Amino acid sequence: MSPDTTEEIMVATYRALCEHGYADLTMQDIADESDKSKAALHYHYDSKQALLEAFQEFIFERFFERVEAADDSTDHPAARLGAVLDAALSPPDADGLRDIQTALLEFRAQAPYVPAYRERLAESDARFRSLIEDILAAGVESGVFDADIEPAETAGFVATTLAGHQLRQVSLGQSPSETRRLLRRHVESSLVVDEEVAEQ
Amino acid sequence: MSPDTTEEIMVATYRALCEHGYADLTMQDIADESDKSKAALHYHYDSKQALLEAFQEFIFERFFERVEAADDSTDHPAARLGAVLDAALSPPDADGLRDIQTALLEFRAQAPYVPAYRERLAESDARFRSLIEDILAAGVESGVFDADIEPAETAGFVATTLAGHQLRQVSLGQSPSETRRLLRRHVESSLVVDEEVAEQ
Repeated sequence: MSPDTTEEIMVATYRALCEHGYADLTMQDIADESDKSKAALHYHYDSKQALLEAFQEFIFERFFERVEAADDSTDHPAARLGAVLDAALSPPDADGLRDIQTALLEFRAQAPYVPAYRERLAESDARFRSLIEDILAAGVESGVFDADIEPAETAGFVATTLAGHQLRQVSLGQSPSETRRLLRRHVESSLVVDEEVAEQ
Repeated sequence: MSPDTTEEIMVATYRALCEHGYADLTMQDIADESDKSKAALHYHYDSKQALLEAFQEFIFERFFERVEAADDSTDHPAARLGAVLDAALSPPDADGLRDIQTALLEFRAQAPYVPAYRERLAESDARFRSLIEDILAAGVESGVFDADIEPAETAGFVATTLAGHQLRQVSLGQSPSETRRLLRRHVESSLVVDEEVAEQ
């Protein structure tokens, strides 16, 4: 399959999920959002399940492109942390954001039933926590972050807060900016040694 | 309906949700877990939706009984916070815990589609945050917690972390004790003035 075809099918899946939600999604819904027929989709993906697994991978790749670009945009550990949190909380397409978050949450709620979802979630989670842990360790090393913090544990705390954001955005309408403010406050009060340099 | 009948139907719903998950649940599944017929369930609840709304209320009532009893068990603000977090993270029935958490997460993921779920979630969230805010304000007042903390904001942060726990327990197997440790660390490093008295 050409990269363009993959991209087109993934974008169609994204739109169909926003429109119909995870539970009700059909291959026809996805076909309706692309210029492919349902038969053509089945030519590329054996089953709706296989397509959804590819979509999960696609979403994670986009997520890491975004957060890793943010991480590379600066060298200062506190600024790196701020940029990564901004990127993690601000998908570029704010339109239909709550719809896609809802579909992704339904997706994630299926993890106990679908081993492939679970494995990919665990991989993605380990990769994200490792990125945060690296930033925190670099900050402890350079004296920007408190020497008493435990980078792996704090990375787990950040990942838990971001998961809480995902759930609360969908179920309670919590805004990314509200969560960002809570995390900024946490970084300032618990992590950085000198608030003046926090998230320059 | 007698309180015993309500209780029996709610317990049957709980068991049926653990067994079948939210998406696949039928009235017959619930009847199969009780000594009521499906017709008897329909006599008490007009629809599966009405029964599920009553179940959501039942789960929230149990949750608040547990956390409010924990809060009443002590007077010291740091101990109150610790007891409430323990209660929030440790439902009494550890058997089938992940199954019911999975069902409750699927439930919660439906909030964007079901206004009654959404309203009850928002009420319950406001009630929980208000409880945490009261404890934090009492702790600031008595000098146990840092005067710089903003009780309402910190309560939102705690609620976000607990929501993250709910999502990560289901999708990644994060244990209540791991989240409890992260929160204990957060309380010690960010909230209490004197670590000696933290969560006595």
